[in-house]
Amino acid sequence: MEQVRIGVIGFGNMGSNHAKSLYEGKVKNGKLVAVCDINEEKLKKSKELYSDIMCYDNHHDMLEDSNIDAVIVATPHYDHPSIAIDALKANKHVVIEKPAGVYTKAVREMNEVGNNTDRVFAIMYNQRTDPYYSKVKELIDAGELGEIRRVNWIITDWYRPQSYYNSGGWRATWAGEGGGVLLNQDPHQLDIWQWICGMPTRIRAFCHFGKMHDIEVEDDVTAYAEYANGATGVFVTSTSDAPGTNRLEISGDQGKIVVEDGKITFWRLRVSEREFNATFTGGFGNPECWKCEINVKPNPLQQHVAILTNFVDAILNGKELIAPAVEGIRGLTISNAMHLSAWTDDWVNLPIDEDLYYSKLQEKIKNSTIVKETKSVTLDVDGTF
Amino acid sequence: MEQVRIGVIGFGNMGSNHAKSLYEGKVKNGKLVAVCDINEEKLKKSKELYSDIMCYDNHHDMLEDSNIDAVIVATPHYDHPSIAIDALKANKHVVIEKPAGVYTKAVREMNEVGNNTDRVFAIMYNQRTDPYYSKVKELIDAGELGEIRRVNWIITDWYRPQSYYNSGGWRATWAGEGGGVLLNQDPHQLDIWQWICGMPTRIRAFCHFGKMHDIEVEDDVTAYAEYANGATGVFVTSTSDAPGTNRLEISGDQGKIVVEDGKITFWRLRVSEREFNATFTGGFGNPECWKCEINVKPNPLQQHVAILTNFVDAILNGKELIAPAVEGIRGLTISNAMHLSAWTDDWVNLPIDEDLYYSKLQEKIKNSTIVKETKSVTLDVDGTF
Repeated sequence: MEQVRIGVIGFGNMGSNHAKSLYEGKVKNGKLVAVCDINEEKLKKSKELYSDIMCYDNHHDMLEDSNIDAVIVATPHYDHPSIAIDALKANKHVVIEKPAGVYTKAVREMNEVGNNTDRVFAIMYNQRTDPYYSKVKELIDAGELGEIRRVNWIITDWYRPQSYYNSGGWRATWAGEGGGVLLNQDPHQLDIWQWICGMPTRIRAFCHFGKMHDIEVEDDVTAYAEYANGATGVFVTSTSDAPGTNRLEISGDQGKIVVEDGKITFWRLRVSEREFNATFTGGFGNPECWKCEINVKPNPLQQHVAILTNFVDAILNGKELIAPAVEGIRGLTISNAMHLSAWTDDWVNLPIDEDLYYSKLQEKIKNSTIVKETKSVTLDVDGTF
Repeated sequence: MEQVRIGVIGFGNMGSNHAKSLYEGKVKNGKLVAVCDINEEKLKKSKELYSDIMCYDNHHDMLEDSNIDAVIVATPHYDHPSIAIDALKANKHVVIEKPAGVYTKAVREMNEVGNNTDRVFAIMYNQRTDPYYSKVKELIDAGELGEIRRVNWIITDWYRPQSYYNSGGWRATWAGEGGGVLLNQDPHQLDIWQWICGMPTRIRAFCHFGKMHDIEVEDDVTAYAEYANGATGVFVTSTSDAPGTNRLEISGDQGKIVVEDGKITFWRLRVSEREFNATFTGGFGNPECWKCEINVKPNPLQQHVAILTNFVDAILNGKELIAPAVEGIRGLTISNAMHLSAWTDDWVNLPIDEDLYYSKLQEKIKNSTIVKETKSVTLDVDGTF
């Protein structure tokens, strides 16, 4: 195989964007050969844009097309696991949009299929290609920061006005998205958080539902996390802070790393805090500390293109995946734990009680009173996520 | 009266520092005339330093000295309320060191006396004279930020090594201090927080006791707060982060203010977020925002001297107090609520159940197993707090 022939399932905001990248040849050795959407209008639009590709009105028919090697699943969140399972079973390589799903129970079933296939199975965690976060991961994995003690992520720069929520009937509903900022905007940060710091052991979260928007799901979350080694974490997010903040601070035994305003600063201790604490006798004093500006190499590819290029490279050349889809359950587990903690007004231990989560979510869907006019507008997402 | 004759009760770290400022004439119209300490060695040291003043080995005798107009109470925290009450009843003007006390029950009794006296009664909340925090308060009180929505204070730069805790037998014990970082280091921030943002309605806090030091009290706290208007807050503090952070972020309907690294930045919205949210129709978009660097006028006086000067000015000229002592109960209430939330592993509504707090604290004191060698070293506090 010299080229991977790719079909895009779901021609909404993200799907149409991926199709465009493929069609314009931005993904080396990746070729757009088909598009699928259950919405007639969207499918029509894809036909107008790309007259030389196949168009399907359902993914089952598309998966029977032997001219397709791989698919991108860019449907609403709920359908990611089931369509991924169908595609893997049809022997296609698969990349799914984030989140991996809405509840871990379904994602666990998907992972069982994913773990028993020889197909390449990736997730669009494009921020793993962000040079800042990947550099921080590299530094921490190499032990430069010592043992992690504290992480604090203020990620409130996901501002969305009411018109955003009004742009699609599925948006910000329990039935349509299964959550708000945690499910739609934060999956990247929830993944990066666990990718760098590992999984917490328990979470206590405070979610506010429809606090600043006319929606039924959460638009404001503060969560506290604890880790097996005693480290603690705070994650604050919202879609109503203007301007918001994106500031990641990680403290360890060897100092502190802050990612903010497009730079990484590493305050590096000359001797570890533990050593200083044990040996310094002066009462008031601090370990010697050097403020280091860390350089990063910009990624030559746009982030989504980088993930698709890596996906194609993995198919053609066995390249290691940047973001294996089976890892998608981790960020989702954190997200589900935050919801569950707010719903039960209590601690949630990880791994979560998946059946409890599922039944609580069904309650929310059943009790939903939101009726939205379905405008189904395809928004211009260039440069937004 | 042309000059206020002042006695210092407690010649430890802070008391000796205040005595020195007075003796050196740094406090206009304030004169050091007496020192009191129950510790023989400390009293001896004060006599050596200031041969022309009176020295008392107990505050009762000192309060009978009609040559004294006012006293500074700089004893360990527990004794602040009872000594303040004695001094007010002896018709002295009083300034107490922070915190106002260890538990609000005692401070409430002190406030009853304080509210029914014509004496000037202040608290050493010297950070209220900090030009940055006072400027932020001025901006917010003037409505520049609109309604407050979120506050996030990472105040982890109170690093203390084990030798600090070993320097005094009373330090970091339930019986001696009644708490750790919340009682000793944070009273300033807890006050500034409520001074600027008002009092929360409920708190959920996560305190870790003796986590990174051989002490029985808390050295690591993460607290979440909710306000009557729906605003939320996070307060993170510790004495083991090296280097720590001191970053205060307050978001409101008109933008965001951040105090960090010796500067105030105000991201000011051109139209309020609420207005933008209601009127913008584009889906993805943000209100226009201006990044404003806010200038502050440096305070010509060192902070503690500024509070003492204001105290003297209030006595002589009826000047309004920067920090009335009766306001000390507010920060302490937040501190007590954080302890109580951690002890009960539950929410704490404000005002707190003072009897419950008191009985829980007595339990901690009773069950304490800490035996410390009492070195009673007077540490050099210049430039530390």
